[in-house]
This record gives sequence, structure tokens and C-alpha cells, in this order.
Amino acid sequence: MNGAKSLVKTLLAAGVDTCFANPGTSEMHFVAALDQVPGMQCVLGLQENVVTGMADGYYRIARKPACTLLHCGPGLANGMANLHNARRARSGIVNIVGDQATYHRPFDAPLTADTTGMAQTVSAWVRTSTHSAELGRDAAEAVRAAQTFPGQVASLILPADVSWEEGGIVGTPFAVPVPPGIDSGAIEQAARTLRDQRDVLILLGGPAVFSESQALVQRIASATGAAVMASYAGASHLARGRGRMQLERVPYVMEQAIKALDPYRHIILVNATPPVGFFGYPGMPSEQANPNAQFHVLSRPDQDPVEALRGLVKALNAPEAAIPDPGPRPEAASGAPTPEGLAQTLAALMPENAIISDESVSYGRGFYKFTHAAPAHDWLHLAGGAIGDGMPVATGAALGAKKQRRVINLQADGSAMYTLQSLWTQAREQLPVTTIILNNSKYNILIGEYRNVGATPGATAMSMLDLGNPSIEWTRLANGMGVEAARADSMEELAKLMQASFGKSGPFLIELMV
Amino acid sequence: MNGAKSLVKTLLAAGVDTCFANPGTSEMHFVAALDQVPGMQCVLGLQENVVTGMADGYYRIARKPACTLLHCGPGLANGMANLHNARRARSGIVNIVGDQATYHRPFDAPLTADTTGMAQTVSAWVRTSTHSAELGRDAAEAVRAAQTFPGQVASLILPADVSWEEGGIVGTPFAVPVPPGIDSGAIEQAARTLRDQRDVLILLGGPAVFSESQALVQRIASATGAAVMASYAGASHLARGRGRMQLERVPYVMEQAIKALDPYRHIILVNATPPVGFFGYPGMPSEQANPNAQFHVLSRPDQDPVEALRGLVKALNAPEAAIPDPGPRPEAASGAPTPEGLAQTLAALMPENAIISDESVSYGRGFYKFTHAAPAHDWLHLAGGAIGDGMPVATGAALGAKKQRRVINLQADGSAMYTLQSLWTQAREQLPVTTIILNNSKYNILIGEYRNVGATPGATAMSMLDLGNPSIEWTRLANGMGVEAARADSMEELAKLMQASFGKSGPFLIELMV
Repeated sequence: MNGAKSLVKTLLAAGVDTCFANPGTSEMHFVAALDQVPGMQCVLGLQENVVTGMADGYYRIARKPACTLLHCGPGLANGMANLHNARRARSGIVNIVGDQATYHRPFDAPLTADTTGMAQTVSAWVRTSTHSAELGRDAAEAVRAAQTFPGQVASLILPADVSWEEGGIVGTPFAVPVPPGIDSGAIEQAARTLRDQRDVLILLGGPAVFSESQALVQRIASATGAAVMASYAGASHLARGRGRMQLERVPYVMEQAIKALDPYRHIILVNATPPVGFFGYPGMPSEQANPNAQFHVLSRPDQDPVEALRGLVKALNAPEAAIPDPGPRPEAASGAPTPEGLAQTLAALMPENAIISDESVSYGRGFYKFTHAAPAHDWLHLAGGAIGDGMPVATGAALGAKKQRRVINLQADGSAMYTLQSLWTQAREQLPVTTIILNNSKYNILIGEYRNVGATPGATAMSMLDLGNPSIEWTRLANGMGVEAARADSMEELAKLMQASFGKSGPFLIELMV
Repeated sequence: MNGAKSLVKTLLAAGVDTCFANPGTSEMHFVAALDQVPGMQCVLGLQENVVTGMADGYYRIARKPACTLLHCGPGLANGMANLHNARRARSGIVNIVGDQATYHRPFDAPLTADTTGMAQTVSAWVRTSTHSAELGRDAAEAVRAAQTFPGQVASLILPADVSWEEGGIVGTPFAVPVPPGIDSGAIEQAARTLRDQRDVLILLGGPAVFSESQALVQRIASATGAAVMASYAGASHLARGRGRMQLERVPYVMEQAIKALDPYRHIILVNATPPVGFFGYPGMPSEQANPNAQFHVLSRPDQDPVEALRGLVKALNAPEAAIPDPGPRPEAASGAPTPEGLAQTLAALMPENAIISDESVSYGRGFYKFTHAAPAHDWLHLAGGAIGDGMPVATGAALGAKKQRRVINLQADGSAMYTLQSLWTQAREQLPVTTIILNNSKYNILIGEYRNVGATPGATAMSMLDLGNPSIEWTRLANGMGVEAARADSMEELAKLMQASFGKSGPFLIELMV
């Protein structure tokens, strides 16, 4: 058995059965092993940032890691932005990067690069396997690292000769690592704060915004009167809709975030970190909480929020509490497209248990308010700010749900152009993804940011902010990659196209002119 | 004057007047400065690997650096593969990466990343500017680093507050650095070898394959009978066609390279390095030259080959020698598309002084033989092996030639999908680029490499190597980005479309079904 076969067998034994791939020459023995050892679902992405973004989306829904297959340092580089996003989303990925044979590396052939240096910038764990006999064990450790709660990017660099040499040994899978326990002092401190103080905010991040945690948070909030919010940066996957808390995230815009957090003198962090601005701005602070606020860490991002919240419920003796009813389901909107209308239409029409992949950027900042009364759904956000994850995350999420849930991708046009190749994989795999391109033909968020600098963009600035010359025709781009598509100029047309798409088994793209 | 203005003024003073950009929030003060200080041509790319690839293509033709404008670590990451290629092509680029404000970085906001660590993997020079008063000087040093012969990637990381703070001072441009002189001993050694030995190969890399060097090499070869070849990895931009040497590159395929180099016992390196395989293969050596061959370094890649070759001509007292006539210009081919037919048609129809951006990968390996008798032209190759540079390099080359030369992009379909957004910039800037997509609907090079592993690809392997399900319709993709396009199924159709495209001022895409 060569190293590559031991690698595939180890991955399968450890439960990793999906591989998002864009291979090259140095990975051909791994590809051959995937051919020879049955059991791995291999999904091709036509550019590596699609590959890594799919692995992120897959983990977010399947809650188990897939592996990737990338080609040398530059292939890794192409996928690094979405690995950055996955790192920020705390998604588990076994990121396999084929590379030059160990003995060939010193010759500095054209594709040779500092693969390790690149991997370290986006990974919690990096190892270069150096012998075929150790590759199985290295792979088992990579899976363990990826599974480390709530999920990590683990990069395994695989020189070609380690793949092709004989002597491979299948690695024994490790148990899924148990997160560090919750300190009883942290629970007592949070309980005391909630009992003794007014102006308390419970700030949720990571899995603390999933359903199981929400049920506990509801009890705590009902018993104590504390406010609850989701972190902006730390909550990139929320359980939402009927039966879930009507959470709002800390606003993106600095002034709004400072205002929203201003009332709170005590902030209990549940898998969240203290809120900071997405960027620094002249004359503005970096931190968003009231300077007089005290932070109390109930659970760190690497700890189990359910354990922490159970402990807190017990310490407070908080009784059962029902999640408040969000009121009637909205009706689909009519007329010209607006953000509110889109959110209402989405709430009106989305099927039960849908997945929203939201990279709507500036257009989507008010979507939450209008979608609390939608059926239960998962809402996925861009976690690391590197645009271009909405489409690949949607693609991977559909595979993570075994094509059993409708994925709705709310997608800004500028960001969509980063990873449009995702549409081809959606067509190839016949994935139930409805993409709604919000076509405003500009980098609208940047035009707003430019105005913050204190001026109206001139011709040179607009040459870098406008996408309208020429206009991008998304229906043609989708058709060119095998995805059916249509344009909507009104909310009625959008509603009709959305409903039709939900009846299809494959992908559909709607270009909404906003 | 804030830092950003001092930066723009310094760049312009140093002769950098073109900026390939995809900005973000942290670059808004730089964008504003570009608005306020006239003189910089700003060109938007819709993904950063398009931006950096354009800067590479621009340098290759203009022979002076452009700057880039990228957004934070992830924006840099997106452009790293083509910076890797530019590094291998030894193209000069002032790679400007906006980043978090210095005081905001410790807060680890979502987009914060190890920007320096990323930049170091692809740059010869990296600096993070830390004060607005020093930014002008830092920029002048970056330009000097980019201009260091024959060209380098110089990355200047620009925290947002260094841009917006007042106190900027325009940097004084440095003189273009003079390359290290040629050692007279190296010239004597090469002259002695050429006089005393048979079986001598002169191996050319970098600017040693430009016209001025070729005229000198011709004299040396004529006087001594030495063979001449271009390096595969080291010669990524050749002056070719009538009036230029009929050079062949060392073949890509390992066995062919070993066979081609086998006769030579002495290899004189002129800005080339000893030839090595693109990859390691089981049972094959890494080095391609005959194991008994001796290498003689006439000039290193960072030295001036013209100086070296002049010295050698003088030492050999080599008389003037005419470049041999390549024979009659081929006629356009007819019938079904073949690589030979494509090369002949190209040779028959390309306008004088055309630029070929060749990312034809496996399809294009035999193009040289049929194009020696074409009009004089520049032929650009992928230098670093990271696919996805053909289209952005074509785009940047057209700008480097001030839209005065026709660029013909010979483009494999799989590689084209990496950076297809380039077409939009071609339409926006109305660039004279004719793209010929070689649509074979597969990663053909990899199917060949898989066979080398010793087997026929099975279903799982083909799921990662085949691009035909669904087929990609390139005419629709081009149209969707504002580029006229048509399909050709025969050489006659191709010839007709090529000729028509050469009469247009803007871009055109031909999808050749091969």
C-alpha cells in the first residue's frame, strides 16, 4: 500500500468522506488512490477559493470536516481567502495540499513555493508529512485537529513521493477531542452579575447561537431580564425563524454598534469576544462597548456553550421559558425591489429548514427584522470579511445537507464575481441552490466608505468602485456554466422565480436588478 | 498632505503611473488621494489574481513597474498565485496592500491576517510602513526594489492610519539600480569553453532571449558552432518571429528534456539556471542535463546579459552574423482544429509586433516550430506554473503597450476558468485582445499525468479531471462580461474570426472546439 492509499483509508476510517478538489500533477497518486479505494465523494471546484469555500459551507451544515485537495503553494494561495473565512467561522477542514516531492524541493522548480509559510497564515495546525509510513498517522492527527471544538483548519502538506512510496500504514482515528470544561467560577460570576446587576447583555458567538443554546439563553434572559445579542464577528451561523430567538447581531456600522452597546455595563461573553470595529476609522475607538462596561467570560470560543449555559441555568435556577412567538409570517412584497421587500418575500416563501448563505454585504443589513417569522432556517454569514464566500459556502452547504435542504444564496454582485465558478459545480452536482444576485453594478459598500472619508467619489475613484461599465449579465454567466437563470425587475417577478426554483432539484439563478 | 497623497506623488515622481486595483475600506484614503492627485491610470480587476496578473503582463511589455492596490491579507492572498508567477517571471511590481490601522491590528478584527507573512512568500522586498512621514520614502524604496534588475515583486503594506494621518512627505525617487557587473573570469571561462570544447550548449534565460541579446548570441553561436536553447522555466518572454533566432525551449516533458540536453557536456548559463524537472517523478532524476555536463555561469539572472554577451563576443572576436531566415510565412490551415494548424494560422495571420500570451498548457507544446516565420512578435509564457495567468497577463500586456499592439491570448479552458474576470476589464478598457479559448472540456495535462501513474482514470478520478459536465459555453461567459465572442469548429472559421478581430479596437473571444 502506498502512502496515498493509506491516506484515503485513514480519512474514511475517521469519517471524512467528502473531498473538495482541484488537483494537479503532484496529486495524481492521491487521485489514483481515490479511484482505487471506494467511499470518497469527490467534488471538483474550478478555482481553489471555490474548493475551500465549499469545505467551509459543508462543515457548517454537516458539522463534520471534509477534506480538500489543492495543488502546491499557489493552489493553496488561491484558496487562502476562504480558508481565512473558515478560520474565522471556526469551521473544521482537513486541508490537504499536494506539493513537490521531498527530494525535488531543493531544486526550486517553478511551482515550488513556501507552502508551509502560506498554510500557517490560515491554519490552526500545519504538518508536512515526510514518510509514507507516517502519512496515515499524520492524517489521523489532521482530522483530530480539524474536529477540535468548534472546528479548525488543519493543513496537511503532502509531498508527491510521500504519496507514491510504498509502506503506507492506515492511521487509527482518534476520538473527537472534548472541549476544555467550563470553570465553575465563571458560571458563578455570570450568575452573580445577572442577579445583582441591571444593564446586562449576554453576547453570543459560535455555537451559542444554535438552537440548543438558544433554548437555554431564553430561560436565562426570561429569569433575569438580561438583554441578548449575537456577536457580529463571532456569530456567522445562526439558527433563526419560528421557534428560535429573535436575535439581532451587533450592527456592522461603527456608530450604530456603539449606540446599540452603549446601555450595557456588564457583558457576559458566551463563545464571543469583546466587540471591535471591522476597521479602524479616524477619531473612532476600536472597541464598541461602553468604556465603562465590564466583560465576564462565561465560555471561550473553544468551549462548549451548552455546558456553560446549562451550568448558568442551574445556578440561576431559571425556569423553563418558551421562545416568544415572532408573529404572523410576512407576505411576499410587491413593487420595486427594496431590501425590506426582499426580506419579506424571503420570509414568505422560503421552505421549511432552508439554509441562507448571505453575502448580501451592504444591501442585507436589515434582513433580520423581517425574517424572524419565517419557518425555521439556518442563516450563514461571511465570517472573515474576505468577500467571495457566499456562492461556495452555498454550494458546500447543499452537499453538507446531502441535497435535502434548499439553499438560498443572497449574493452581492461584486462579491459574486470573486467565485462565480461555484455555479458550475452547482450544475455539475445538481445542487438545490437558488442564487439571488443583488445586481446594483457597484461596490456600494465602498462608495459609502468613500463618503466617510469626506468627499464624493470623482472619476478616478469611480473607475475603481463602479461595476456598470460594462454591465455584467448574470443570466448569461449562469447559462454559460450550465445553470438556468432569469432576471427579475420587480418583487412579483422575484417571488414567482423563487417559488419556481424551490420546485426544482437543481440550481437556479435570479438576477435581481436593485 | 496626508500619507496617501505623499504615496501617490512619490509613485508618480518615480514614474509609476498605472495602478491595478481592487480596493476595500482600508484603502479609501488612498483611493481619495488617487482622485485628488492627477496622473495615475487606475484599472479595476474584479478579483485580485486578475489585478496581480495584469501587473505582471504590464511589466513584461512596458519594462517598468505598475503598482497594485489590494485589500488586507485576504485580498493579497487572492492575488498571490499570480504574484508567484510574477516572481518567477522576474517582473517588477510595486505591490501595495492596504491593511488595518496600526492601532486597530491588536484587536484582531475579522479581516486581520498575517499580511506580512503572506507577502514574504511571494516578494523579494516587504515593508510595512508605520508613519505617514515615512511613507513617501518607503514608497521610493519599494519602486527601487521593483526596478532591481530584471524586476522584483516589492510589497508595501499600508496601514489605513498611515494613509490618513497628516505629515506626508513626498519621497525622492532613487536611480534605477545598476545590476551587478559581469566578472571577467566568467567571460574568459565561457570563451575558453566555446573555443576548446565541442558539445557546448548556450542556455538562455530572462532578458537573454530578448532581441538585443539574441543578436549577440547569434554571433557567438555562428563563430563557435555552439548550440543555443532557451530555458523552460527561466525564459518566459521571448522575442520571436522574423529577425529573431529560431530558438526552442528545453521541453516540458521530462524524458524529452533529458533527451534534448543529453548531447551537451558543457552548458553556458546566460541568465538561466541548471534545468530541472517541473515535478519529481518516481524513478526519474530531478536534473535534466547529462550528469557529465559541466555548467559555466556567464551571467546570473540578476545580471545584464547584454553586458555579458558583449564581453563574450569581444573575447571570441566573433564577427557580425545575420539571424537566419526562417523561410516563407506559413499559410493559414484548413480543416479540423489541430495544434499544428492553430500555430500555422497564427503565424499566417498575426499582425506585425503582436504579443502572444500563451497559457495553452498541453495543447501548445509544439507551437514554436510553426511560428518562426511569423512577423516579429513577443511571446509570453506562464513562468511559475500557477495556472490562471494567461488572461490577466494578456490584459496587462495590452495596457503595457498602450493599446497599440494586438494581444493574442492562447488559452486553455481549465486555466481560463481561474481568472475569467479578466474579460470584464478587457471590455471596460476596450483593450485590443483576441482570446482563443482552446476548449477541450478537460484538464488534459492531468489525464496525461494520471496515465503516467500507470492506469486509466476511473469514474472518481474523472470527476476531478473532466470539465465537460456541464460544458462551459465560453461565448456566453464572454458576452456576460461585455466581450463579443464566437465559436469556431474549423480552422477556416478560426481564421475568419481572427482576422475580423484584428480589425477591432476592443476585445474579442473565439471559442475553438478542439
